[in-house]
Amino acid sequence: MVEEVSNKQVIFKGYINGYPKESDMILKTSTIKLKVPEGCSDAVLVKNLYLSCDPYMRSRMTKTDHNYVPIFTPAQPMSGEGVGKVVDSSHPDFRKGDLVAGITEWEEYSLIKSTAFIRKIDEQAGVPLSYHLGILGMPGLTAYVGFYEISSPKEGETVFVSAASGAVGQLVGQFAKLSGCYVVGSAGTKHKVDLLKTKFGFDDAFNYKEEADLDAALKRHFRGGIDIYFDNVGGKMLDAVLPNMNFNGRIATCGMISQYNLTEAEGVTNLFYIMAKQIRMQGFLCYYYRHLYPKLFDLVVPLLKQGNIAYVEDVAQGLETAPAALLGLFSGRNVGKQLVRLASV
Amino acid sequence: MVEEVSNKQVIFKGYINGYPKESDMILKTSTIKLKVPEGCSDAVLVKNLYLSCDPYMRSRMTKTDHNYVPIFTPAQPMSGEGVGKVVDSSHPDFRKGDLVAGITEWEEYSLIKSTAFIRKIDEQAGVPLSYHLGILGMPGLTAYVGFYEISSPKEGETVFVSAASGAVGQLVGQFAKLSGCYVVGSAGTKHKVDLLKTKFGFDDAFNYKEEADLDAALKRHFRGGIDIYFDNVGGKMLDAVLPNMNFNGRIATCGMISQYNLTEAEGVTNLFYIMAKQIRMQGFLCYYYRHLYPKLFDLVVPLLKQGNIAYVEDVAQGLETAPAALLGLFSGRNVGKQLVRLASV
Repeated sequence: MVEEVSNKQVIFKGYINGYPKESDMILKTSTIKLKVPEGCSDAVLVKNLYLSCDPYMRSRMTKTDHNYVPIFTPAQPMSGEGVGKVVDSSHPDFRKGDLVAGITEWEEYSLIKSTAFIRKIDEQAGVPLSYHLGILGMPGLTAYVGFYEISSPKEGETVFVSAASGAVGQLVGQFAKLSGCYVVGSAGTKHKVDLLKTKFGFDDAFNYKEEADLDAALKRHFRGGIDIYFDNVGGKMLDAVLPNMNFNGRIATCGMISQYNLTEAEGVTNLFYIMAKQIRMQGFLCYYYRHLYPKLFDLVVPLLKQGNIAYVEDVAQGLETAPAALLGLFSGRNVGKQLVRLASV
Repeated sequence: MVEEVSNKQVIFKGYINGYPKESDMILKTSTIKLKVPEGCSDAVLVKNLYLSCDPYMRSRMTKTDHNYVPIFTPAQPMSGEGVGKVVDSSHPDFRKGDLVAGITEWEEYSLIKSTAFIRKIDEQAGVPLSYHLGILGMPGLTAYVGFYEISSPKEGETVFVSAASGAVGQLVGQFAKLSGCYVVGSAGTKHKVDLLKTKFGFDDAFNYKEEADLDAALKRHFRGGIDIYFDNVGGKMLDAVLPNMNFNGRIATCGMISQYNLTEAEGVTNLFYIMAKQIRMQGFLCYYYRHLYPKLFDLVVPLLKQGNIAYVEDVAQGLETAPAALLGLFSGRNVGKQLVRLASV
């Protein structure tokens, strides 16, 4: 007799435009059998312990002709990265009790029908489980790729990071310091600005919401110009950065969170500088750099063990808080990597 | 006794905004002694034979905080690339009668006080003199660098070129065909579109002025998307191209002629695709790739001798036509590389 249990879920209501609202997601309780069904040969059934809230998820909530990640299915649970514990498995590489990270659904228990996008967590590494959704997960890989692979950093160069206290930005700043760069970050509250300077070791930081003139703010912080811009926001900040870039500068286009909820994107007017300053502006998606996870681990795990790298998380408690936690990303309510904790190991 | 002769000049009146007018340049006749003055040890005095009209010259007519080439000096002659014959020289490498190409002034005779930016023309190459301002000059180098060094072309890829019949574009299209690419160009008249297809071997071409919907025009010509965009124009065309780029596409940002005469640049709204499609958008200035002139010559001179590459010039006659010839670039009046012929060898 297979045990059937209650399973709270966060259901995606339907496609939206503009800012998402909590009511675009619905809490529901269904039931689930704690066993991989017959006929599923590459599946695991997991108890979800942590879920990850990430800005890219916004693009999964709108149906367009340019979705770059699969869109959500209306009336089905939201999905995203998570950490879980295997309850049952039909794949020989995964056993009951294993801890895994990867694509799961927003519910207490998930049947993951393909193991292609989950990875086993090495508990020997001795890092907090949630870090596999942050510094050792997609945000960590994103920071690693965008800084080391895309930005061609050199010692002594100047680096600007927007959304700098976020899941990715806080790591970019620390990588920049490790590379001997001068790094300044922008964020949206005094608390975040303080964190950048005291916790993450940025050389300086500013609150972009308090700057009437972003160009002037950048000129104040970069008298000698910007060599590398790690762009998490796009829009007005990108437009202000372009004239402040140095000759042969690089822009790593990681995200454009300032634009995701606009029905019409803001126009960027300063692209002239791409030519005039020989700038290289390059987009990247960490999905296509998954082969670099081992390099990320080789870099970061020793730093974590030595206490030489910090990672700040913002952990909401309980599945029912997940919709608000996701929405908080777009108003900047989160401080650091936004997670939702569902259960203990 | 040094011969003193009359010297017609085109004088830059003063800094402007918006579209340049003929009256921003003044014809004047002064006199000049046909001898390098005492004390000038690195100078040549040349009789100018051809002058080059290039879009970048527009940016020399406005004083901003972002000039990427030296601005013109009011009340002094316009300057730019030219071909001339040495009348007198104080530098051992240049002798009377030598033909040279490089930075000169818009006048019949010029005293060039430094030979740093002029190069001796090898008459043995057997190509028309004017080609040293086009296919073998700055436009040729620009096309070479932007295509081979910046765009990473691969056989079978699709290439889109804007301002495709211009001094640079016509070569990019031919380089793309030599590399086994599929290439489409845009231009602003039926005559130019015909030239692209019949003279330069583009696979297809369209008149952007007759397309109400640039996105639709691009979709019609690139059903499988665009791998490489060689951007000479910026603005609305760039915005339309971005959603039509393929994953891992490259944009060589060569120029933004659609924007040079606007007091406020058009906003580009589709930069989201830079991230979502992992696009690399890279600016370049041929000045910083001068060391590649020999590679350009090695590629192009044999092709010219075999008749396997075409180059179309638009030659205005007489110094007094130079202002109108320059202005024609911004209304698309020129067909091919715009030159002004002053005198015969």
